[in-house]
Amino acid sequence: MDDRIARLRLIRTPGIGPVTFFQLLARFGSPQAALQAVPDLASRGGGRPPKLASLDSVEREVARVEALGARHLFLGQGLYPPLLAELESAPPALVVSGDLKLLERMTVAIVGARNASAAACRFARQLAYDLGQEGVTVASGLARGIDTAAHDGSLESGTIAVVAGGIDIFYPPENEARQRAIAERGVLVAEQPPGAEPRAKHFPYRNRIIAGLSVGTVVVEAAPKSGSLITARLAAEMGRDVMAVPGSPLDPRAQGCNGLIREGATLVQNAADVLEAVRPLGAKRVGAAGRDYRAPAADADASESERRTVTGLLGHTPVAADELIRQSGLSPAAVQTVLLELDLGGRLERHAGGKVSLV
Amino acid sequence: MDDRIARLRLIRTPGIGPVTFFQLLARFGSPQAALQAVPDLASRGGGRPPKLASLDSVEREVARVEALGARHLFLGQGLYPPLLAELESAPPALVVSGDLKLLERMTVAIVGARNASAAACRFARQLAYDLGQEGVTVASGLARGIDTAAHDGSLESGTIAVVAGGIDIFYPPENEARQRAIAERGVLVAEQPPGAEPRAKHFPYRNRIIAGLSVGTVVVEAAPKSGSLITARLAAEMGRDVMAVPGSPLDPRAQGCNGLIREGATLVQNAADVLEAVRPLGAKRVGAAGRDYRAPAADADASESERRTVTGLLGHTPVAADELIRQSGLSPAAVQTVLLELDLGGRLERHAGGKVSLV
Repeated sequence: MDDRIARLRLIRTPGIGPVTFFQLLARFGSPQAALQAVPDLASRGGGRPPKLASLDSVEREVARVEALGARHLFLGQGLYPPLLAELESAPPALVVSGDLKLLERMTVAIVGARNASAAACRFARQLAYDLGQEGVTVASGLARGIDTAAHDGSLESGTIAVVAGGIDIFYPPENEARQRAIAERGVLVAEQPPGAEPRAKHFPYRNRIIAGLSVGTVVVEAAPKSGSLITARLAAEMGRDVMAVPGSPLDPRAQGCNGLIREGATLVQNAADVLEAVRPLGAKRVGAAGRDYRAPAADADASESERRTVTGLLGHTPVAADELIRQSGLSPAAVQTVLLELDLGGRLERHAGGKVSLV
Repeated sequence: MDDRIARLRLIRTPGIGPVTFFQLLARFGSPQAALQAVPDLASRGGGRPPKLASLDSVEREVARVEALGARHLFLGQGLYPPLLAELESAPPALVVSGDLKLLERMTVAIVGARNASAAACRFARQLAYDLGQEGVTVASGLARGIDTAAHDGSLESGTIAVVAGGIDIFYPPENEARQRAIAERGVLVAEQPPGAEPRAKHFPYRNRIIAGLSVGTVVVEAAPKSGSLITARLAAEMGRDVMAVPGSPLDPRAQGCNGLIREGATLVQNAADVLEAVRPLGAKRVGAAGRDYRAPAADADASESERRTVTGLLGHTPVAADELIRQSGLSPAAVQTVLLELDLGGRLERHAGGKVSLV
């Protein structure tokens, strides 16, 4: 069975997210070996084995991606964006369409409010245009408002749109022509397979890809607690530049950005300010090697007593895997194996920062 | 002769600025002794002695100040604002009128453009009002635009207006009623004697007093290279908080403030933001002891050879007095005495940071 088909079967299996996927490959060395191991691991974890994505469904996905003129990119391989690969939760597979060499250039995200003011949209379009003239690719989320303006400003120079659903699902509907244009002349990126309707939970996933692709994220007009601020927070957690366009305190739509600046985001007023902020990081990051899977541990099976020790240390409060290793006195490989078993058995929840808890 | 009269005669003497005044008192211990020493010092410095302000002229100033219902405050004495006293160039004497207990409260400066937008003026007025409700005194420069709005917002709660000329000179003329009201219900402050018309060079002097009185300075709408930005720079050099109100990059009047924020000023949107910034510093600073003059050195006369050594080390490039002490191998007192002689002889220029050069 083809390595890529096996990867897709793993990641399309309900209950196997990017982190579990990564753990499986680290543990078993190949996606084929991981696929075979999942049922046993899950039953040792005490739960029902996940229903593996069928070979048939994945072959249909591959055919559909091909029919759409798109292709898959796999973490750690080929054109997969190296900055995105640095993420702990990097998508194991992406569906991409368009001019893929744009993925190799320094990329800056521009995000913001759906209901932004006309002036802010004009500003975002100009900023995207000006960055494009400097050879920077602009990434955004194809939402109404600022996202749309950012794509419009950079369609000719290089734009990346990351969508929450499948690349063939047009959301918002009025952006269909724009999405089609980007799928040809820019790059359209989806974590979900074709045909997947975007759900609420997919939007933060989409946001992490936008931030993850980019050396920095510029926020233009964002309401407090909006998705754009989540993207900014994700970018900060990734160690990327967070930039915000200020506004008058008398303008309620400026509150989100002014708040970001108060928290340490760089105030930017134009493309020169953005370039000044991202160039030091960008120069270092672009072309950096992507993360790859580690070689499997020599003997990483867990004994029944190890299983009991780790499970006994777990509760409903998230705890770092490192902490479990320290407290249990077991080898990291044994602890990770037990966690993987619990995970696939549906009894483990994975949190940010490598923390875990019982479901 | 009265100590205060002697202080006024010294500081009203052309060529004796605040730093020279401070050096004279440090060297001679009393203003009377300093006054007597000036002619000899100056001739040893190789120049023409400065024309000392006459007893008569200073007595007329005192009478005029009294007639205006005002009074003098002297550095290191009584109600002289302790934060202002920390400055290397603290005015040796101030003419003040009004409710002097306002000088004892935590003070925040609000400054900005003369030709500010109506919205920014409304914002400044509200900010001054809100700070006043928190027991903060607001300082500004009684100029058109933002300054005027800041005074209007804080007239009832506590406002300090620092003017560039004498306290009885109304500038700008349309602010006469406002200046009279502040002289009664707020505090009106002048470094120049009554009757002095404000000259261009007086405005930066005025700005240093505004910043020096205050734990922090808030800039609301300022053009690049404007006086408000000079005030902000002075505040930063004094180690005080610099705060700025942001605006849209599309608004040219926001450029100065956005630039300040990019350089590290705190973005503020309301009184709560200002208080958050200044309270840590303010609590420490308010009530701090003011600077006072040091006791005179036991034997600080300079010999002819010491005079030649120091003069030989000086050139047209500003050099720190400490550097002269190190290079000459002479005592600090001897070097300071020679510098004072040259200064009073009109041959020395004093620069920021304690540097000196030949004229």
